[in-house]
Amino acid sequence: MAIEGSKEEASSGRIRLGMVGGGRGAFIGAVHRIASRIDDQYELVAGALSADPEKAKASAGDLGIAPDRSYGSFAEMAKAEAGRADGIEAVAIVTPNHMHAPAAKAFLEAGIHVICDKPLTTTVAEAEELVQLVKKSGKVFAVTHNYTGYPMIRQARAMVAAGELGEIRLVQAEYPQDWLTERAETAGSKQAEWRTDPKRSGAGGCIGDIGTHAYNLACFVSGLELDELLAQLTTFVPGRLLDDDVQIMLRWKGGAKGLLWASQVAVGNENGLKLRVYGTKGGLEWTQADPNYLWFTKFGEPKQLLTRGGNGAWPEAARVTRVPGGHPEGYLEGFANIYTEAARAILAARNRTALDPAVIFPTVEDGLKGMQFIDAAVKSSAAGNVWTKV
Amino acid sequence: MAIEGSKEEASSGRIRLGMVGGGRGAFIGAVHRIASRIDDQYELVAGALSADPEKAKASAGDLGIAPDRSYGSFAEMAKAEAGRADGIEAVAIVTPNHMHAPAAKAFLEAGIHVICDKPLTTTVAEAEELVQLVKKSGKVFAVTHNYTGYPMIRQARAMVAAGELGEIRLVQAEYPQDWLTERAETAGSKQAEWRTDPKRSGAGGCIGDIGTHAYNLACFVSGLELDELLAQLTTFVPGRLLDDDVQIMLRWKGGAKGLLWASQVAVGNENGLKLRVYGTKGGLEWTQADPNYLWFTKFGEPKQLLTRGGNGAWPEAARVTRVPGGHPEGYLEGFANIYTEAARAILAARNRTALDPAVIFPTVEDGLKGMQFIDAAVKSSAAGNVWTKV
Amino acid sequence: MAIEGSKEEASSGRIRLGMVGGGRGAFIGAVHRIASRIDDQYELVAGALSADPEKAKASAGDLGIAPDRSYGSFAEMAKAEAGRADGIEAVAIVTPNHMHAPAAKAFLEAGIHVICDKPLTTTVAEAEELVQLVKKSGKVFAVTHNYTGYPMIRQARAMVAAGELGEIRLVQAEYPQDWLTERAETAGSKQAEWRTDPKRSGAGGCIGDIGTHAYNLACFVSGLELDELLAQLTTFVPGRLLDDDVQIMLRWKGGAKGLLWASQVAVGNENGLKLRVYGTKGGLEWTQADPNYLWFTKFGEPKQLLTRGGNGAWPEAARVTRVPGGHPEGYLEGFANIYTEAARAILAARNRTALDPAVIFPTVEDGLKGMQFIDAAVKSSAAGNVWTKV
Amino acid sequence: MAIEGSKEEASSGRIRLGMVGGGRGAFIGAVHRIASRIDDQYELVAGALSADPEKAKASAGDLGIAPDRSYGSFAEMAKAEAGRADGIEAVAIVTPNHMHAPAAKAFLEAGIHVICDKPLTTTVAEAEELVQLVKKSGKVFAVTHNYTGYPMIRQARAMVAAGELGEIRLVQAEYPQDWLTERAETAGSKQAEWRTDPKRSGAGGCIGDIGTHAYNLACFVSGLELDELLAQLTTFVPGRLLDDDVQIMLRWKGGAKGLLWASQVAVGNENGLKLRVYGTKGGLEWTQADPNYLWFTKFGEPKQLLTRGGNGAWPEAARVTRVPGGHPEGYLEGFANIYTEAARAILAARNRTALDPAVIFPTVEDGLKGMQFIDAAVKSSAAGNVWTKV
Repeated sequence: MAIEGSKEEASSGRIRLGMVGGGRGAFIGAVHRIASRIDDQYELVAGALSADPEKAKASAGDLGIAPDRSYGSFAEMAKAEAGRADGIEAVAIVTPNHMHAPAAKAFLEAGIHVICDKPLTTTVAEAEELVQLVKKSGKVFAVTHNYTGYPMIRQARAMVAAGELGEIRLVQAEYPQDWLTERAETAGSKQAEWRTDPKRSGAGGCIGDIGTHAYNLACFVSGLELDELLAQLTTFVPGRLLDDDVQIMLRWKGGAKGLLWASQVAVGNENGLKLRVYGTKGGLEWTQADPNYLWFTKFGEPKQLLTRGGNGAWPEAARVTRVPGGHPEGYLEGFANIYTEAARAILAARNRTALDPAVIFPTVEDGLKGMQFIDAAVKSSAAGNVWTKV
Repeated sequence: MAIEGSKEEASSGRIRLGMVGGGRGAFIGAVHRIASRIDDQYELVAGALSADPEKAKASAGDLGIAPDRSYGSFAEMAKAEAGRADGIEAVAIVTPNHMHAPAAKAFLEAGIHVICDKPLTTTVAEAEELVQLVKKSGKVFAVTHNYTGYPMIRQARAMVAAGELGEIRLVQAEYPQDWLTERAETAGSKQAEWRTDPKRSGAGGCIGDIGTHAYNLACFVSGLELDELLAQLTTFVPGRLLDDDVQIMLRWKGGAKGLLWASQVAVGNENGLKLRVYGTKGGLEWTQADPNYLWFTKFGEPKQLLTRGGNGAWPEAARVTRVPGGHPEGYLEGFANIYTEAARAILAARNRTALDPAVIFPTVEDGLKGMQFIDAAVKSSAAGNVWTKV
Repeated sequence: MAIEGSKEEASSGRIRLGMVGGGRGAFIGAVHRIASRIDDQYELVAGALSADPEKAKASAGDLGIAPDRSYGSFAEMAKAEAGRADGIEAVAIVTPNHMHAPAAKAFLEAGIHVICDKPLTTTVAEAEELVQLVKKSGKVFAVTHNYTGYPMIRQARAMVAAGELGEIRLVQAEYPQDWLTERAETAGSKQAEWRTDPKRSGAGGCIGDIGTHAYNLACFVSGLELDELLAQLTTFVPGRLLDDDVQIMLRWKGGAKGLLWASQVAVGNENGLKLRVYGTKGGLEWTQADPNYLWFTKFGEPKQLLTRGGNGAWPEAARVTRVPGGHPEGYLEGFANIYTEAARAILAARNRTALDPAVIFPTVEDGLKGMQFIDAAVKSSAAGNVWTKV
Repeated sequence: MAIEGSKEEASSGRIRLGMVGGGRGAFIGAVHRIASRIDDQYELVAGALSADPEKAKASAGDLGIAPDRSYGSFAEMAKAEAGRADGIEAVAIVTPNHMHAPAAKAFLEAGIHVICDKPLTTTVAEAEELVQLVKKSGKVFAVTHNYTGYPMIRQARAMVAAGELGEIRLVQAEYPQDWLTERAETAGSKQAEWRTDPKRSGAGGCIGDIGTHAYNLACFVSGLELDELLAQLTTFVPGRLLDDDVQIMLRWKGGAKGLLWASQVAVGNENGLKLRVYGTKGGLEWTQADPNYLWFTKFGEPKQLLTRGGNGAWPEAARVTRVPGGHPEGYLEGFANIYTEAARAILAARNRTALDPAVIFPTVEDGLKGMQFIDAAVKSSAAGNVWTKV
């Protein structure tokens, strides 16, 4: 029934959370904090919020973090928190990309669970090292490929897995934006500055920032593994140091194909992430800007508009749904689902209980796959757009 | 710029919040709690969560409320909390309608701010009494007509006020649902049970539950005062005790007109709240299910699709926006905006500082207007669909 | 299968057609002519295209009408054509409203079939007289309530008739436009001039021009008969002589209800005709601007998007469909369906064969119902918005 | 003004038209005939409608073609009609692809204008020969890349040409269908049979049938010339003889890039042709299924929804528009625009008058470009997906 009940997590025993990055003026840090609060599973108690000591302090004050738990560096924080009886159990890493690996390493080594923004690192080697370290440490490691948290994406994945589409033939992903149409990085945009700077972003610009999201989503929903790709990375804006448009042909193991297009210069697109999956028996279409809808067509039948919380919602969607159909959920709720799923894993670790097998969140291995994807795409493009194994 | 910065409130000094109603199995209580957490302005520390003592206790446990602050009744809670140094500063009332007035009264008299679900009461007299009590007490009183919290609704209101539409001629509001198409109230739906029960809902069914939302939104955006209405309330489902479909002709002061349609039996509609406002110079259209979009047309020019966080966003939208355009916000964020605006008023009261004039939330007077609207509509309908002053 | 075959009528023995009105600068005359050609059932051979002899002559030349069959008046044309062996078999009347009745009368009396634009006449009395005359003459009389020609409207009607929606509860119709937002009638718009002139349009402005379309469509699809209505007609634009906005409450025989809203001052709407029908088992929604889609929801199931020529198309849609799904048909094709259905009746009359019972087109009785609707609405509004039998 | 006037061509002196192919059960022949009638510029007087004499005869009868002008072959028809004083002036060739070249050749050599379906031929050599023959003959030759006839496509082209988008960076075209998801060609679908048969279709399946449409549209709107492409053609359906899915990377002269995707196995897509063009200053998006809308965004401003016949319509759209905004035109009207533009050229030739420079229709050179595109794509794919000059 439409409005029967809404979902909410119990809050007993919030997870003590620290944060690296995310000080005043940052973008994604605030998103992580809101996501951590929505289901009341975390309490932010420590931070190394900025490399700038003044800003770090002020930002901690804004967020109600006690002065003695506002640190000057992630290294200091990892050490100090590991030594406290009430130290943080998990850390959110929300810095530019180049800081992900060293920070993650420090916290894993300190025995602290990690929730890390994407892309995982700036190189495949760093990512591989992190995978090993996670294995060794036994800690929870979540990567915020947040779009996998949308309920209708969960449903899409479940429908594919259940064979509703038959054998998959095509996986088409795209993620157009327009915010880098002009040279914002020299016009005062902090977000543009580091995202177009190879030192802080790694070898990929558009492909690292949003291409990996599209790729992660395509893998998540289709359940397929990529075999090889053929990429063309372009820098349209003169003077820009990294790619701002990405075209990729995809060959999936098992014979499916697809195209992935990501762009930061497609005027009129805000965050146009879209996924389409077609199989022998059916097709699915989903658009991030309107995430409560999932189009489904069985071959030979009328299109259906499945809605989050609506009549066609599957249990996999329902378990990450908070309010009834027709009352839209959005980006923050999807992001919160990653946090809450990670919390389930962290609490299972805390309580030494078995983890509910329904729990899903992007792992360090998914993060590594993202780095391998960037790496292969950059190489394919540099080699003249040739097929390259992932 | 698209992803430059996201909004987040500082959390220093959270407001201590109590809750009446909202125990296990309730719908709107969880929504209020999430809304209270999103911007980190509140901390839930006390509750009278259910009339059933067992359920009250268990629900408090779920929510991390200390056992000694889980109360058996709102009266007990008001008294006890008023006597504590660390007692609640505000209470959220999320019970069925008939409990709103007595609970609100108790907390106002105990000097505690109130955030109350809608409709305000079950009778106009109760609502008038509350208005007086709020005036006398000087306390903050917010009514969760949550749709006014959507950023593009804030923008719509600002655009009308700024004269972008010219003189308003038409205000068309509708709110179709379908969840009461069959007799859910005798088929085990708790939500349907009390919402169709005059003892708990008051004299209005559909008109009280969703008609008031549509009316409140129409007033909020248009800035108009209703003069009179002509209503036809219908009960389509045999055996149902209250109206499940409402048609109303509206005459606004100043000459504008409009129609308001709300229904709980319009199959295929989840929460189809929609507002259209037309003036001598322009028109606006907004749909709750897709709340990040606002259609605007200047007469004689192409339609514009204004987006939350996008290029056409006004400051009034931006101040209640958390993430960039193309990353959708939804129902819970809009609801949170009511909580956060109320928090600003509560903190201004706490700190004896002036309240930012930009702060907007539905007040007890808006709640009273909603009750007068229900009352007039019920009377107009009973009298044979005649014009009735509000 | 998507592109298997397209429909086309055989053209053997085109119907000889004349036209009254529709000279240079007219709007609806050209629409009628195109509609008459699409399925190759008619040949335009005579005309009284304008009251202005020069314009009549020039217009006839434009259209390849022989000079001796370009007439100075409909009376002359009816007489002359009736006397020719190769005289017209049917006439299209596309003048302003006040000319419909005298012209139709002249041609019926001359034994010529009539296709007449809407509204049928300017008074109920004239319409009743025409009904009698049609009965007496045995001639075909079609009224171009063209929206009934859209394939998905045919399907909607069939679905209602087949019980797919259960018992109908609500029929909601609206038709907002914005072209009369300002006083176009004194700013050089010929179309606005006569449409806002009671002498040429009759007692209804907006209600006659587009309200009757919405009403006709609501009747056509729902299969219901209207019992009574309560109307409020408004003239928003100062100096205008007829209504430019119409609100009507509808009570259908059998207990269904509904609202009808039509407006010529709703900025941002071009031709926003929309119909929604809700029953005990399902709901339908259709929008004229996107006519190839029909939304259908069975209560408790996901929404379906039925498409013209697509998998969910019914035979009733298919028989008036020309091209496969995904290749849109539009206004002219819908209009052509009225012409082609009328042609089937005219050819059956010519050939003295039985008429296929599947043939549907709006008749003189439908035209009369439209006039009764206008009349009742004008009276209800004038009497202070009271329930008025139709 | 919204409903001021509708466009219609004068019909004096219809062009005498013949048709090759398009007998009973065909798809595109009927479309051509309707398109030829809409603006009353043609009269169908002769045909070689089928290779099957019985069917040819019956089809001619259906269409009112005199028995002595129903021919057994195009060769016979070309000869006979060239010899008649009232012989056809133009011929429409609507056969499967392999017949286009020989038929076109015959009619050009007989001094008869040609309107030919696409793709132009089955080989580049044939196409080149036709180009030479057209030059030599001086006859009008139109290829029915009909999507270029849509008014908003005309407008898109004009906007790009006028610099509204700045310098073009990206041209993204897609054309997904689903009708060949299963092996329809062995299940009785005549349309599928020849379209998947290399003998009748040529070397391209999906790429020839719909890929060329997408390519033609991309060229038409962007005004760009393709430099090279990298293609991957896939046959998903076992046993099928031609490609049913096409992915192509595009490099345009001048530096713009793009992707072209066409598919016949993308379940849920009817005729999903979509074009998106992005430049340094703005972006455009258009979808064939909803052709009356054109999305336009200037960088940094809100999106605009431009409508055919609406406030943002340009003269280039208006000259091929028949009815006011909000009254949708569709596929047949767009197709008719090709016919009518070709008629202007044919009439200019007949009357030895200068051709209005605003007249646009796809020419034999465009047809050749389509064949070169198919050829390059097939070669690129066969060579292992390598860059191939067009």
